[in-house]
Amino acid sequence: MEDLILVSFGAYFKNLRVSKGLSQEQLALKADLDRTYISGIERGKRNVSLINIVKLAEALELPPKQLLDFKFKE
Amino acid sequence: MEDLILVSFGAYFKNLRVSKGLSQEQLALKADLDRTYISGIERGKRNVSLINIVKLAEALELPPKQLLDFKFKE
Repeated sequence: MEDLILVSFGAYFKNLRVSKGLSQEQLALKADLDRTYISGIERGKRNVSLINIVKLAEALELPPKQLLDFKFKE
Repeated sequence: MEDLILVSFGAYFKNLRVSKGLSQEQLALKADLDRTYISGIERGKRNVSLINIVKLAEALELPPKQLLDFKFKE
């Protein structure tokens, strides 16, 4: 179940980033995070924390809750 | 800023738990997490992860995004 959450979130998050027209590099710069961290999230390898969710939401100019508006049911 | 995020989330999260009529102990049991972890979140000491946000949301019978519908601006 936990992998499903991370993989589902990663795919959803990538769509949000792409819809904002940002590369991983650009988003990493805006969010003051490392590009490889962004890549890890999108590959479903990172269990992102609350503080980083908020940082990424601000960089995407979205409310934090929108980053968790994803589906992951089996 | 980071402390503000954790403290604001903690206070908001506590309100959600109380509004559901659950004690920390009951919520911890439902979410398969430790009561001291719940207490740490509510005191603004825990940078909760995505997987635990989803677990806590399920235990509160709320969509994950509702757990991030909190204000933290300075």
